[in-house]
This record gives sequence, structure tokens and C-alpha cells, in this order.
Amino acid sequence: MDEFLFLSHLKQHFRFGKLGDDCAVLPMGESTDLLATTDMLVEGIDFRLEWTEASSIGHKSLAVSLSDIAAMGGEPLWSLVSIAVPEALWNQTFLDEFYSGLKSLADIHHVEVVGGDVSSAGDRLVIDSIVLGRCDSGKAILRSGAIAGDLIFVSGSLGGAAAGLRLLEQDDLQENMLPESRVAIEKQLKPIPQVQLGKLLGIQQLASSMIDLSDGLSSDLLHLCKASNTGARIYGDRIPVDPSVIRLASHSTGAQVPDVLALALDGGEDFELLMTAGSEHSDELSALGCTVIGEMLSDPGRLELVADETVKPLTAKGFRHFS
Amino acid sequence: MDEFLFLSHLKQHFRFGKLGDDCAVLPMGESTDLLATTDMLVEGIDFRLEWTEASSIGHKSLAVSLSDIAAMGGEPLWSLVSIAVPEALWNQTFLDEFYSGLKSLADIHHVEVVGGDVSSAGDRLVIDSIVLGRCDSGKAILRSGAIAGDLIFVSGSLGGAAAGLRLLEQDDLQENMLPESRVAIEKQLKPIPQVQLGKLLGIQQLASSMIDLSDGLSSDLLHLCKASNTGARIYGDRIPVDPSVIRLASHSTGAQVPDVLALALDGGEDFELLMTAGSEHSDELSALGCTVIGEMLSDPGRLELVADETVKPLTAKGFRHFS
Repeated sequence: MDEFLFLSHLKQHFRFGKLGDDCAVLPMGESTDLLATTDMLVEGIDFRLEWTEASSIGHKSLAVSLSDIAAMGGEPLWSLVSIAVPEALWNQTFLDEFYSGLKSLADIHHVEVVGGDVSSAGDRLVIDSIVLGRCDSGKAILRSGAIAGDLIFVSGSLGGAAAGLRLLEQDDLQENMLPESRVAIEKQLKPIPQVQLGKLLGIQQLASSMIDLSDGLSSDLLHLCKASNTGARIYGDRIPVDPSVIRLASHSTGAQVPDVLALALDGGEDFELLMTAGSEHSDELSALGCTVIGEMLSDPGRLELVADETVKPLTAKGFRHFS
Repeated sequence: MDEFLFLSHLKQHFRFGKLGDDCAVLPMGESTDLLATTDMLVEGIDFRLEWTEASSIGHKSLAVSLSDIAAMGGEPLWSLVSIAVPEALWNQTFLDEFYSGLKSLADIHHVEVVGGDVSSAGDRLVIDSIVLGRCDSGKAILRSGAIAGDLIFVSGSLGGAAAGLRLLEQDDLQENMLPESRVAIEKQLKPIPQVQLGKLLGIQQLASSMIDLSDGLSSDLLHLCKASNTGARIYGDRIPVDPSVIRLASHSTGAQVPDVLALALDGGEDFELLMTAGSEHSDELSALGCTVIGEMLSDPGRLELVADETVKPLTAKGFRHFS
């Protein structure tokens, strides 16, 4: 049982009907919906202390939740942070750096840190990042709004964060660091959530459905298809691979050469936005830096990849906590 | 540096101005304030698996956050739960029981579970419980509203949860279990948050300040005094000690006899409400099951205990994660 199957079980068995999108959408008065999201980050799984400065951990903790608000077309307002701290990290330097990184990102997006909790912990630092935001009533962009024939768009470029993770996992990291390696590593450690784009898409109501790319394109596309009861076909040669990945591949040799398309398809944590829209919105979405990568199909749950002029089934291969 | 000092540092250094009450109070439209609270529970610190059924852990996770909403005089609406699960606990039985316990309590208070996150973990189960609620604009009962001369009230009775914890910590628990022991243990493992009372106090605006008793009476009273810039005097013989504690003491002998007053003063996790109000509200608060235990003083931060007809300084001795 992976965590997605479990969440689906929870939703049905306990009738937790609002589960299953990037944020919960909660009516607050006549004109506003409250958006609420929570993300738990665990040391050794979501970050490693030997790779990451405390300020980057603070940044990433907030970034992943801001990305969820963006994925609903919402505006983030408030952050709450719960943190369980091992004795060894309970010192002012570490904690101040953590909150500095978090606050810097919060300030950029006019998000106020309004609450949280502090606990002691076992061996691992655990952070739960909660962001509350808003959108106009009924205007949240859900995962479930796509219809067959809609085009599929993605913001920015993909695979950079996954390439950064591969680089960090290499032992001889410091010795042969190329500039593009630094870019990829930065994308892994300090991802940039698409807050402005998300808000704009919400206001302009351009997208029929949306999700953020946290688990990986293939995996998140499947979530979107399941919620919308559709399938999807994407074109390998249209996927905007991150320039750092392409440059890294061109420098690599033999067994070191990364599978560029696999990184872009299955590597997670890019925190770009994946959305669907009718073709009449192509120009506007293109002007916002989004790229068409495919179209939605009527066959529920069917994922296809067109590569080398052949159509193949696409398997969702993103990160799983449990199997 | 304990966690309270650290939170006060965070508030000042990073200008996190809304930190420091039981909930964040967030304006949502003209007539409503949103209340938001988050509580992190860590295995081995907030609960032990060998003492506690999964359903009780689910219950307690929600109860502690509902108590924070009650402490603002608010109405709870929604729950989100993040959970980091060790491999050994990732099975449907454990998880279903956890969510059953949580949902049973949620249903009682018409709270809907609307979101959360699931992650793998290290060795310890970690839960972050978020509750969102509401109150009328400007009507949240803050910690900072007490003035010198206000009477101090407490709901229910104190010390039961701490007595339950002591019993659980004894090795020979099963063999000499008295009925009152079961009551005290139940108070520790499945605390009852004062949701109805809190909501009523918010609607009727009877209290000038309020806090929930999570850390312990002496400690939480000090938080309230600091926020209100006042002192407080309480009377030992007026503190409503939990009947289970008194009965346990009467059965105990020699070194086993618990210090009844110390359990009521410093034992945490009763999740009763501590409030202040002008004397004109005494009858109404008494009718709601609240007991007068003292009065607020003008001297900031001064805590006094009257016991055995002498006035002594009262030291805040509640639970600390860090020292």
C-alpha cells in the first residue's frame, strides 16, 4: 500500500471528502474560499543536514507549501510552522538560520508567519509547514477539471531538481563542480515556488485543472488524470528539460550520462505547475512561460508517451514513501 | 534556552507579531476572524505506543488542538493532520485505528477532516495536528486581556492527567488497578477538550483573558500573566483537585502518596480552561462549572500561592521540552 492508495482509502472509508487536491478548499463567507495545505519534511527523507544549510531547509519547508497554494490558483497569506528538534540541533544559530531562510521567502510573497509549535524530537529534525491562502469563492483550480481534448501545459523547465539530487548523492561532488551543477543543486535545495504564476492563473481562470510538480511529471500527471477521470498523452520532444540537465549530459561520459528525459519525466521536486486548458488559451499561457507538452485523452487513467515517433504507455515513476 | 524563551525571541527578532497565543487570530472578511493552531506530537515524548492504543493517539492529537480553539472562545471547523510513520507502523490496522479515534472526536464537535500529509519517518511516529476555527471579528479571548483585580477561574478539575501519567510510569500497573486509577489514566490518554465551554465563553464574552491548561496550572498562569503584564495570587485550598487524585492519595501509603496539590499545580495535560473575569461574572462562570481560584495582581510576572495561611512565591514548574 503506497501513500496515494492509503489517502484514497482514507477519503472513502472515513468520508474525508475534501482530501485529494493540493489544498483543502474551505468556504469562508460569501466571496472567499480559504485554502489550507500542510507538508511534512523529515530529515533523511526530504533533506539531509550534510548537504543543506539550515536557511535552505527553512526556505524549502515554506516553498513546498507555497507551491500547493499556487497549484490552486490562490494567493498565500499566512504560514504556521511546527518543528520537532533533536537535542543536538537545539541551538540559536541553527534555529535562527532556519527561520531566516523561511522568513526571506515569506517576505518575498508578503506571507506572514503567524504560528507554529516547537517540540523536542528523537534523532531526526521533523518540520510541518502549513500555509493558508485565499481565492475568490468557487475559483480554486482543482485537479478534477480537465476534459478530453484539453491541452497539457507545464511552467518553466523540468529535471533540474532531480539532477541536483543525483549530484549531491555523488561522493566526489566538490572536486568537479561545473556552474550548471551548482544551478541544479540550487534547484534541489532551494526550489522556487510558482506563486505569481499560480495567482495569475487563478485570477484569469485560464486553466481547467492544475497540480504542482512535487512527485514528478509522470506521477503528478496520473493524479490529475485520476481526479479528472481522463487519460493523457505527452510528447517527449516537447518537454522543456532544464538547461542545467542538458549541459550536464553533454559534459558526462559513459555510465555517468544521465537519462535526460527520465529525469524530466520522473524526477520530482521541480515545483513547477502542470495545468490543462482549452487550445483557445494557448497564446496566453505561452506568454506566461508555459509550454504545451500534450493533450488529455478520454480513456480514464491511460498515460501515453510519444517518443521517437512511437506511442508507448507511460508509467508513473515518481517518489513513493511506501510501497 | 527553553522553548518559551525561544518563541519570545522569534517573535521579537523576526517580528512574528501574531505568535504567542493559543491560536493565531487572522482576519477573514468583515465579520469573521479565522483561528489557526498547530500541535506536534512526538512518540516517546507526547505518547508511548506501549501505553496507548492507536485510536487514543488519534483522539489526543485532535483534542490538544481543539483545546487551543476553545481557549480563544472559538468554534472549531476543520482539521488537517500530517503524519510521519515509521515502516513498522505502516499497516492498515494501526492507521485505521488512529484515524478512527481522531474522527470520533471530530464528529462529536462537527469538525471536518479536510487535509493532511503522509510521510515516511525514522524510528518515531510524529503527528502534527492543525485545527482551523472561527469567531466573530475581534471577539477572540486573548491571553493579554487580564487586568489587576480580575478573578481567576478554572474549569473542571486538575491533576487527573498527571496522576494518570504517574500510574502509567509504574511497572506494576495492571496488578493493583483501582477504578480511580482507570479514570486518571483515561484523562492522560484521552483528554476531553472544553470545546462547548470555550465556544460559550466566546459568544457571551464573559472572560477578559483565557488559556488552556496544557503545560500545567503554574506554568500556564505565568504565560497569561506575562501576556497581560500582571501578576496573580491563587489559593491552594480553592483549586479543584480531580477526585481521582484525592481517592488515589487516600489509598496510597508511605513514599507512594502523591503530592496532591503539586499534581494539580504543576501537572500538565488536563486541557481545562484557565480564565480571568471581573467579579460581576462570578455567578455565570460558576453556573458553567468554573471555580474561582484567585485574583490577578498588578505586579507584572509575580505569582503567589496562598497555602496553610501563608503567602508564598509560586514557581512555574510545568513540562519543558528544552532547558
